Amino acid sequence: MGTARRSEFDQGIALEPHGSEAGRYEAELGAGWQIGGGVNGGLLLAVAGHALSLAHGDHRDPLSISGYYLSTSRPGPASVRTEVIRRGNSLSTGQAVLSQDGEERLRVLATYGDLAELDGEVHTSAQPPVMPPPEQCIGVEHAPKELISQAALLERFDLRLDPATVGWAVGQPSKQGRIQGWFRLADGREPDPLMLLLVADALPPVTFDLGRPGWAPTIELTVHLRATPAPGWLRVTHATSNLAGGYFEEDCEIWDSTDRLVAQSRQLARAPRQ
Amino acid sequence: MGTARRSEFDQGIALEPHGSEAGRYEAELGAGWQIGGGVNGGLLLAVAGHALSLAHGDHRDPLSISGYYLSTSRPGPASVRTEVIRRGNSLSTGQAVLSQDGEERLRVLATYGDLAELDGEVHTSAQPPVMPPPEQCIGVEHAPKELISQAALLERFDLRLDPATVGWAVGQPSKQGRIQGWFRLADGREPDPLMLLLVADALPPVTFDLGRPGWAPTIELTVHLRATPAPGWLRVTHATSNLAGGYFEEDCEIWDSTDRLVAQSRQLARAPRQ
Repeated sequence: MGTARRSEFDQGIALEPHGSEAGRYEAELGAGWQIGGGVNGGLLLAVAGHALSLAHGDHRDPLSISGYYLSTSRPGPASVRTEVIRRGNSLSTGQAVLSQDGEERLRVLATYGDLAELDGEVHTSAQPPVMPPPEQCIGVEHAPKELISQAALLERFDLRLDPATVGWAVGQPSKQGRIQGWFRLADGREPDPLMLLLVADALPPVTFDLGRPGWAPTIELTVHLRATPAPGWLRVTHATSNLAGGYFEEDCEIWDSTDRLVAQSRQLARAPRQ
Repeated sequence: MGTARRSEFDQGIALEPHGSEAGRYEAELGAGWQIGGGVNGGLLLAVAGHALSLAHGDHRDPLSISGYYLSTSRPGPASVRTEVIRRGNSLSTGQAVLSQDGEERLRVLATYGDLAELDGEVHTSAQPPVMPPPEQCIGVEHAPKELISQAALLERFDLRLDPATVGWAVGQPSKQGRIQGWFRLADGREPDPLMLLLVADALPPVTFDLGRPGWAPTIELTVHLRATPAPGWLRVTHATSNLAGGYFEEDCEIWDSTDRLVAQSRQLARAPRQ
């Protein structure tokens, strides 16, 4: 698996069909996708999403995909068992179970279709995030060392955060509960639907902007993919409006270089201790 | 099953354990919960959610629950098969499959806990919807006859819509993509976590307010339950910002009588034809 020319992301989500079990695929979770001691939840969703894409044939794009995180994933081998629950004319629904050493890490339900087949109407009232151009935004090389040392993941990204939402990096969180920035992969691999599953969980937890610098484990993450992204920079904005009872929601929008809202996601995560 | 004193909702989600199959429950989907030719998706989620609540023991409340809708449910018998995937100290994750005559209607993943055990901090920046008191809002008795005749469901509700978001009922949709109102059950049954699963899919499709009066089948619905609701009226507001490619997202907030944001949900639905 893997050639010199394959991008880091394609290597990261690469799958081999299992020799004898139909619908089962073998993956290798790379150490380069770790964050805070585990493998990034967005990458895991992209691995499971890739398996379901293979299982669903021409219904290859996840229109809606929900992941429930069960235990911390570690670098190393993983297996994904898929089940096609129902195949319809335009949509198919399936399930994936990602496990390591027999322990379940992630269970996924998803409905797949073909984004290229959707009708062309666009009535989007949401507005793309307003922020300075990438060269005036803050690269992760300016992030606190404690953050980078725990996040090999960040080396895979070219992430430029809006200066207005990055005060937390110098001890001055805005307390607005929003972080946004420009995103592309460091090796230049262009966006596609599966990559958006990674991007939906790529920014630092929005709780950083509320003055809570700890990690925020995801309980559940649902991504709606609404269009195939155009090549170029993505803009990603995420926010929370309800940190309560030890949990918070994180709503994310991903916009492509043509100003199309290509994905919306929401997760429920455990709030870092104050 | 059912006594004279049991509320309509409790009757609607009532379950009998299967005689011999562990984790399986039998339900009877009532004709009174129909809308647009099928059984309401929120009621179905509450039936499956009820089964998972029984399966999870003291982790009885769905903190996050995602339903994928596979085929149209009809009034009559249904079975729910549950699987506890993982039991942790404070959270448990499980799966439910709701079927009729061997055909799968709904598959659910959910993480359960005990809302009463959550810590008491509340940092909610979202604001409750602003609208006139219930007696100045619009009851469904004023809704178009075509709507009511297809929606036996509405007889179970005491739903009072904000006049500012109900212009569609007289051919003047606001085009804002928002509908909101006061909600309680017609028989006075007080809210609890499982009832909020019904409420998350109880309002007319938000596309009515965009001038599209057709039905909008749900592909996927995820509800986050964030607190046990207090007795009394609920306020429900839902909105869309991205109608495109034949689909739209519908984001819903449910507020209780103490101004607590008790649930947030999002669904992906198929847009009615224009």
